[in-house]
Amino acid sequence: MALIVQKYGGTSVGSTERIKNVARRVAKWSAQGHQLVVVVSAMAGETNRLVALAKEVQAHPDAREFDVMVSTGEQVTIALLSMALMELGLKARSYTGTQVKILTDNAFTRARIMRIDEDRIRSDLASGCVVVVAGFQGVDEAGNITTLGRGGSDTTGVALAAALKADECQIYTDVDGVYTTDPRIVPEARRLKTITFEEMLEMASLGSRVLQIRSVEFAGKYRVKLRVLSSFEEQGEGTLITFEEDENMEQAIISGIAFNRDEAKITILGVPDRPGIAYQILGPVGDADIDVDMIVQNVGHDGLTDFSFTVHRNDYRKSLDILKPVMAHIKARDVVSGDTIAKVSVVGVGMRSHAGIASTMFRTLAEEGINIQMISTSEIKVSVVIDEKYVELAVRVLHKAFGLEQPV
Amino acid sequence: MALIVQKYGGTSVGSTERIKNVARRVAKWSAQGHQLVVVVSAMAGETNRLVALAKEVQAHPDAREFDVMVSTGEQVTIALLSMALMELGLKARSYTGTQVKILTDNAFTRARIMRIDEDRIRSDLASGCVVVVAGFQGVDEAGNITTLGRGGSDTTGVALAAALKADECQIYTDVDGVYTTDPRIVPEARRLKTITFEEMLEMASLGSRVLQIRSVEFAGKYRVKLRVLSSFEEQGEGTLITFEEDENMEQAIISGIAFNRDEAKITILGVPDRPGIAYQILGPVGDADIDVDMIVQNVGHDGLTDFSFTVHRNDYRKSLDILKPVMAHIKARDVVSGDTIAKVSVVGVGMRSHAGIASTMFRTLAEEGINIQMISTSEIKVSVVIDEKYVELAVRVLHKAFGLEQPV
Repeated sequence: MALIVQKYGGTSVGSTERIKNVARRVAKWSAQGHQLVVVVSAMAGETNRLVALAKEVQAHPDAREFDVMVSTGEQVTIALLSMALMELGLKARSYTGTQVKILTDNAFTRARIMRIDEDRIRSDLASGCVVVVAGFQGVDEAGNITTLGRGGSDTTGVALAAALKADECQIYTDVDGVYTTDPRIVPEARRLKTITFEEMLEMASLGSRVLQIRSVEFAGKYRVKLRVLSSFEEQGEGTLITFEEDENMEQAIISGIAFNRDEAKITILGVPDRPGIAYQILGPVGDADIDVDMIVQNVGHDGLTDFSFTVHRNDYRKSLDILKPVMAHIKARDVVSGDTIAKVSVVGVGMRSHAGIASTMFRTLAEEGINIQMISTSEIKVSVVIDEKYVELAVRVLHKAFGLEQPV
Repeated sequence: MALIVQKYGGTSVGSTERIKNVARRVAKWSAQGHQLVVVVSAMAGETNRLVALAKEVQAHPDAREFDVMVSTGEQVTIALLSMALMELGLKARSYTGTQVKILTDNAFTRARIMRIDEDRIRSDLASGCVVVVAGFQGVDEAGNITTLGRGGSDTTGVALAAALKADECQIYTDVDGVYTTDPRIVPEARRLKTITFEEMLEMASLGSRVLQIRSVEFAGKYRVKLRVLSSFEEQGEGTLITFEEDENMEQAIISGIAFNRDEAKITILGVPDRPGIAYQILGPVGDADIDVDMIVQNVGHDGLTDFSFTVHRNDYRKSLDILKPVMAHIKARDVVSGDTIAKVSVVGVGMRSHAGIASTMFRTLAEEGINIQMISTSEIKVSVVIDEKYVELAVRVLHKAFGLEQPV
């Protein structure tokens, strides 16, 4: 008997019929003697409906009230799924983020989970109940409703699995696993049987959109066994996210090509090349709760350097506003920026021991006449920023260049 | 400067445009220097949408999960109204029933308010905030979400006014006050400037539908000054619900004709006429949380009597099921019942000192050939149960017989 946390996304619970399907799947696992905690998102379309309503009233909805509002989406789903489970003869009980309780900080619309009280869930499980928990939401110390931001239901699932020391956390979605890249762009893209946490982190953060990055961080930190599965297929074992030292890993050098069109780049020209300057620029940005992704600074000359970074497009204008007084203060020459960029990355743990990955990447792009605007690398990935209009082309040629359509 | 609790029903907040109108009205009161607590219902149609969704999954939705689900309706409205108030430059803050907190018992779908923690509201008011509270919902000791049942938002409003010792509780609705009867049936029906709490209790419980009965009980108990107003008219002072000893009362004998089509009658024939028998019959019904309205028992003969009562139609089948074993136990002869009945009542505090009200009522109905099935009286009302199909006719002829179309 295992304790399994399952998470079903918006499309998987997009109608009452689909919710009944989810209930049947849960019932099957339950019939095998497993204890189940099920995390659900809002029904597909519901969050957008609520956001649209809010924007009819306030062009930029107040963050606290926004969370009060959108958190109702999951609250409806937990009740419906609990009812569907009862219809199948199971005992079930729903909990909102406030009820569990999933304690977060008070950064409305992008809160972070700090602690989960799992006592109530444990006693329900012990009494034979399936526990249904609202994803995406929590509560701060003062009792305010918070939400975790887009994709936060994955994080809820993994955080619950960690708190409960679950045997596995299964993320059900509308794809049947993690692919070498987006199959809508490269039809030959191949499902990976396993992927390492580190690769997954790079893939998720770079926009593969299968799992939300924070959920993977959580999973890695607490060693939660994470599996991505399709909620629309009866069979299939999806993609298991493994720890690097695990055996039976596919021995590919590159696991996949990730890309992201959600970013904007900001370059500050003529920055005095002295200690502390990076902090002077990025400190105020971070203070405004804006996440910075890539940061690039090259060797300076004549005491000056250029400093570039990327932020989410939603934070682009705000970042520029924040930088205005900073620019004056540090006496930077100018700022150039743009939000019609895309980031494309090749990811793979095998890269560590193989030279030449970056040069293959750059050559492949050059052959297509694609100009590289920024480059950033980590142990297991090489990312480039290019003009947004080349993103599909770049992904296709890179996928082919690294032979990703071939089974390992 | 007064502390005013305002409550807006579903039609008053039925669209984002209407919510903005409510915000403007609240802002006007606020500009006059008043402190405001605003209670809102779910947007019109939203509760029905949620109920329909639930019934797609479970024909008889689990009561706990049902409350989790339908309580989202008001949660959406509080966020939208708070945003609308901020758009007008006011400080505003929303609270769910859980957050306030509005502590109730755990009778899901029909919970009763036990206590309200008003500290948080008071400190918000002191800091110049308009406080927006979700009507209709609360939380039990164990942290489960509860709802107060249909019309419960009125009760929330009055209970908050009582807890905060507010100067007035204003109930905004789609009618501009309390009428002598339903104007849809009697176009000559007249708005009452004042009505006593006792009359209002009888009117509300008998189905006038302007205010939910429990809200009036609360108001009476805690001496909350209650006013019914239209949310669609700029002017108008509505109907003030007064204490009997108040002056300036209209001196009518009869204040109005109330009616109710939501009931079903159950008569147990041949009940042994001995002490304790009424309890043996109604005890199990009450234990099942079913409210009994009229109870009629006449003088017995031959040691036997007939025992009748009415319940809400939703509880009709359940009541009959509960009574089956009771019938056998007390050796009653038979049960006759029906759910195509209506109750019509004449209500008025003036009745106390005036004879002949009942006989005028019975004569008027007899002249129209309407058979009376049950009669029940109180100090300030006479109620009869008749065939449902005669209800409009009965209301019209009684309204005329008591001259209610004439201003006092």
